[in-house]
Amino acid sequence: MNDPFVVVGADAAGLSAASKFRREAPDREVVVFEKGRWISYAYCGMPYFIAGYVDRMSNLLSLSPGEVDERGIDLRRESTVVAVDPDAKRVTVETAAGERFEQSYGDLLVATGARADPGPFDVRGLDGAFTLHDMDAAAAIDAYVADPDAYDPDRADVSAVDRDRVERNAAMSAPETAAVVGGGYVGVEVAEALSERGLEVTVFHRSGHLLRPFGETVGNRVEEALESEGVTVRTDAPVEALGGDDRIEAVEIGGDDDGDPERVPVDMAVVGVGIRPNTDLLDGTGVDLGPGGAVRVDDRGRTSLPDVYAAGDCATARHAVTGEPDWLPLGLTANRAGRAIGATVAGDPTPVGDIAGTAAVKAFDAEAARVGILDREEAEAAGFDPVSETVTAGSRSGYYPGAAETDVTLVADRDTGRLLGGTIVGTDRAAVRIDTLATAIEADMTVSEVERLDLAYAPPFSPVWDPILVAAKVLNGALEG
Amino acid sequence: MNDPFVVVGADAAGLSAASKFRREAPDREVVVFEKGRWISYAYCGMPYFIAGYVDRMSNLLSLSPGEVDERGIDLRRESTVVAVDPDAKRVTVETAAGERFEQSYGDLLVATGARADPGPFDVRGLDGAFTLHDMDAAAAIDAYVADPDAYDPDRADVSAVDRDRVERNAAMSAPETAAVVGGGYVGVEVAEALSERGLEVTVFHRSGHLLRPFGETVGNRVEEALESEGVTVRTDAPVEALGGDDRIEAVEIGGDDDGDPERVPVDMAVVGVGIRPNTDLLDGTGVDLGPGGAVRVDDRGRTSLPDVYAAGDCATARHAVTGEPDWLPLGLTANRAGRAIGATVAGDPTPVGDIAGTAAVKAFDAEAARVGILDREEAEAAGFDPVSETVTAGSRSGYYPGAAETDVTLVADRDTGRLLGGTIVGTDRAAVRIDTLATAIEADMTVSEVERLDLAYAPPFSPVWDPILVAAKVLNGALEG
Repeated sequence: MNDPFVVVGADAAGLSAASKFRREAPDREVVVFEKGRWISYAYCGMPYFIAGYVDRMSNLLSLSPGEVDERGIDLRRESTVVAVDPDAKRVTVETAAGERFEQSYGDLLVATGARADPGPFDVRGLDGAFTLHDMDAAAAIDAYVADPDAYDPDRADVSAVDRDRVERNAAMSAPETAAVVGGGYVGVEVAEALSERGLEVTVFHRSGHLLRPFGETVGNRVEEALESEGVTVRTDAPVEALGGDDRIEAVEIGGDDDGDPERVPVDMAVVGVGIRPNTDLLDGTGVDLGPGGAVRVDDRGRTSLPDVYAAGDCATARHAVTGEPDWLPLGLTANRAGRAIGATVAGDPTPVGDIAGTAAVKAFDAEAARVGILDREEAEAAGFDPVSETVTAGSRSGYYPGAAETDVTLVADRDTGRLLGGTIVGTDRAAVRIDTLATAIEADMTVSEVERLDLAYAPPFSPVWDPILVAAKVLNGALEG
Repeated sequence: MNDPFVVVGADAAGLSAASKFRREAPDREVVVFEKGRWISYAYCGMPYFIAGYVDRMSNLLSLSPGEVDERGIDLRRESTVVAVDPDAKRVTVETAAGERFEQSYGDLLVATGARADPGPFDVRGLDGAFTLHDMDAAAAIDAYVADPDAYDPDRADVSAVDRDRVERNAAMSAPETAAVVGGGYVGVEVAEALSERGLEVTVFHRSGHLLRPFGETVGNRVEEALESEGVTVRTDAPVEALGGDDRIEAVEIGGDDDGDPERVPVDMAVVGVGIRPNTDLLDGTGVDLGPGGAVRVDDRGRTSLPDVYAAGDCATARHAVTGEPDWLPLGLTANRAGRAIGATVAGDPTPVGDIAGTAAVKAFDAEAARVGILDREEAEAAGFDPVSETVTAGSRSGYYPGAAETDVTLVADRDTGRLLGGTIVGTDRAAVRIDTLATAIEADMTVSEVERLDLAYAPPFSPVWDPILVAAKVLNGALEG
């Protein structure tokens, strides 16, 4: 117990763990190694910075290195953990200064996050082509989008920023057109952001509707929301290459029926086709991996290696519907698991909590959210016989100004009536309503139980029968029929 | 089974029951007696009609008599059921035309609603003094508030309206000042409505904060919201009399420490001090009554009399927290119970569902909501040892424009950690968040379970730790400490 609690990664999971541990075990040492210069930044806020809704990059930081230090946490930035020896209980660290050393641990938390998957594209080698998974990329995109004469360097007001990269991007002529490659939620948010900055934006999506994990109803309404604000959405349009020599000139779309690929000229491309968990440091340790290649953990966040925990975007979490490990890298999951592991390591065993796959996204005025298991194949693989219904219902009493059409989809198991998942999309307080379904799912409620929930009715906020109750009523009818 | 299903009352509960019964048992007769001319109107919408947010009174009607007829329901308006003979299974009906007859029933539903309790005041005898519990009162208030030259008679565009009363009120000089007597939710909504119509409004409330069932935190923030829009709120100011001869001239406030009553001149008063269940027709039947003098019913809506059901504002419902009958007359409860009883009587036994005491109210930009058991004495009477915490948290990520302070209060039982109740108040999507707590309460969740809920995080809608999660974390700390 004399060796410190070593944390790898200084973002949501890592710093939540270190902070909680520090409060609970004030006499024990905690060391956090972070490979980069940035710590504790709001990944989810980057599109809103690019959009211009947020003026200063510093607003996206939750904690400064100084504040971490004040908490009594030994934070080492630009220090990459390159290997873990679980038998000797020590890690190997390489610093940006070229130093290499070993550090013993009592307990180890791997909170290394995930990285953007660039797909088959050479994003790094092409000016005007980006992925968006770190603050330097956000700062570079923001600078690239700006007119060289009008760029305000104070927007990237954080010392950690890669200033050379920002300046180089700021100096380039401003783009007029942009391709967003991939219509997942980063793609949708970036499309809104670039459109708000005045660009002519096209989203290219491989499959038939945007936001695959949100289902077709949501995907189609989000597509409408983007189109109504001037964004072009192209579904069934897989981008196969980025064209250009030094700077991007076009995206190339896969061949149609007669086999001809299509070349669409653009001044900019943001690729958001997926992310991958960072698990390299555990290569060779024999650690169990789970879905998505993430580190498999139990209900306390423990990996298969003794005294080694994992949390955040590099780790699995147990899904409340299936009871099985799943990989759904999201902010709350990371914060919550980190905090729980900090408590556990400090001597107060705390479950990391199940996930329900709850997620929300905004596209201009449209709010969309999802929870649980929606996909038929996924539900069947988990042993369910899914039945689904979609309704359109008002968000307020019909006579009350501002009532908006809200689409709710619910999925339940035919045999047991258990609620498996749901989505909500609309323009009036739609997204937060998903929390009702998340709670019902975590409580293993049936659709009948959901139908009888005493939800709030007040004309400005909800009709007598909340859209969720309407959907439950219809799905229950289908289950009984 | 040859005798019809007789329903007394043609509003939410009664018509929900008749409609559901009609669909499920198309071959059996259903007769609905309604003492007045109005049916199926949105009681909760009346303040918004008075405010001018709703242009036409007809917008507040869910169903017209013609539509009820088309559904195959035998609707008899202006037909008062004055007595029930449960042994002979028949009711006595008096019509407005002076007819009196008996009607046999196979099953009977009492859905007679509630009426405004005028308190000690002679509201009827004084022009400019009103209660607000029916559409004729709403039409009269709307006409009274208008300038005689500017009143648009098309606003009260429903044939059932008491035209003489409307015209008489429209002809009176427009009031400039108004007293709202009682700071419950009708009082708060009417204060907003009259203020929107340009009146100088004072709310007089007997106790120390508005909205007693919502607790002090909500009451105080709603008071601030009203005051910031120019409404004067006077708490600890019990109105003891309305002054004036033919037309109201003042309200009289109870004496202060030196015993002098205070007289506040006003041109108008709306009294909202409470409502009472309409149960007169059951006098002498020996039916069991419950809390508030409402008709006590079981989980299928059955009264203590054979084949006699009750639903809506005249009936009790089982509270999800205590498991005991309670009287919380609200719209969803009425609709849901009516619908369930319609199904049960048609041969498909259906529970009416528990209530959680979920309610929401708007005061200008402020949204407030409550659920469960909040009151310490009430919790103790139900055998709980209540512990409560209130937090203020952001409604969105701090950097996202529009983030607003949201106050959440949670109450839990010390021994079991079970969530007993909660309130939420704020200006950004605050009210609908109560549904998360309502769902948690109906699922008998503990505060630990609430703390680990996977609620949606997206910067425009919610911070990483939703205000509910922040509150659960703090209350859980208090429970463990």
